[in-house]
Amino acid sequence: MSTGHGLRLGVLVFDGAEELDVVGPYEVLAVWSALSPMKPQVVTFSRDGAGVRCAHGVRLLPDGDADEVAPLHVLVHPGGPGARALATQPEHLAWLRDVRRKVPLLTSVCTGALPLAAAGLLAGRTATTHRASVDELAALDPSVLVDTEARFVDDGDVVTSAGVSAGIDMALHLVARLESPAMARQVRGELQYEPEPPD
Amino acid sequence: MSTGHGLRLGVLVFDGAEELDVVGPYEVLAVWSALSPMKPQVVTFSRDGAGVRCAHGVRLLPDGDADEVAPLHVLVHPGGPGARALATQPEHLAWLRDVRRKVPLLTSVCTGALPLAAAGLLAGRTATTHRASVDELAALDPSVLVDTEARFVDDGDVVTSAGVSAGIDMALHLVARLESPAMARQVRGELQYEPEPPD
Repeated sequence: MSTGHGLRLGVLVFDGAEELDVVGPYEVLAVWSALSPMKPQVVTFSRDGAGVRCAHGVRLLPDGDADEVAPLHVLVHPGGPGARALATQPEHLAWLRDVRRKVPLLTSVCTGALPLAAAGLLAGRTATTHRASVDELAALDPSVLVDTEARFVDDGDVVTSAGVSAGIDMALHLVARLESPAMARQVRGELQYEPEPPD
Repeated sequence: MSTGHGLRLGVLVFDGAEELDVVGPYEVLAVWSALSPMKPQVVTFSRDGAGVRCAHGVRLLPDGDADEVAPLHVLVHPGGPGARALATQPEHLAWLRDVRRKVPLLTSVCTGALPLAAAGLLAGRTATTHRASVDELAALDPSVLVDTEARFVDDGDVVTSAGVSAGIDMALHLVARLESPAMARQVRGELQYEPEPPD
């Protein structure tokens, strides 16, 4: 599936993934891919390549399965009710530990931090998650230093974000880190991401 | 497809729709649906019911075709490169004019305003679009009063939003208008939509 030699970023999809956890970061990274001379590749994948039904019913067909999209340099693990389920599945946790050995930068959105924690990948690390799941994260691994204030936490080879929409901010941070703050500003301009939510 | 008697909101999908234009509003409206005692229904549809390939490659399978999801009370028309193409297709414009006769509230995200304008549905109205497409909107219909500052413009039976991510703010406004500002705040809290994009 690889068509280049640049950075490859993969957004994992699964049944019960929160729609905006998937598409917020994907949109940011895809616009980066379109604008950047680095031509990063951004793909979606499910572990077995099958289509998925997201948390609120959107059905997605991914670009491929985990093997087809490898090697990845960045993994985005969305959250949602499905992520909570994955945090209890030994086989998913074993897969994540294998991913950790191969993929330099692991990132999560919202409750995507829960399976990372359950796999032991956040042990002793600073991390964040949806504000409603902070206790759950701490219960899965009491050694995680949970930052309840941050929009996202960059702890080097693992970056976690707060709830749902925070994945957009985290993805802009990834663009700034992996290319430049100027490119992140350009992507942000393209998305006209100057939010003014109604009070 | 209808399973209730409440409000029905439909998000149109098509080839070349911008991913976040679709999923930003969908996420807001779906979380509203999950939280609200009004139990609004939120569906995705393509005009013919077929799956679509979005602007950056995400493949979506909609809930149904235009007839299956009718009657709608609110239409969300996303933008993206595909919307620009739809603005030149007489058959899509005729469909939109028919929709206007049936659907009380038409909304657009980003360049979703272009087909609305091309169909004559914004004539003499105040509206907005992606900042890069303001001239294009004015060229399609010089009688449109383009607000280049607004995040979204509520002109009664038509609500248009600025570029891409502005669809999230517009959808929160729809929740506030169609139910209450308190409910919109609750949805916003669930999405943890307190953006802090990196500079």
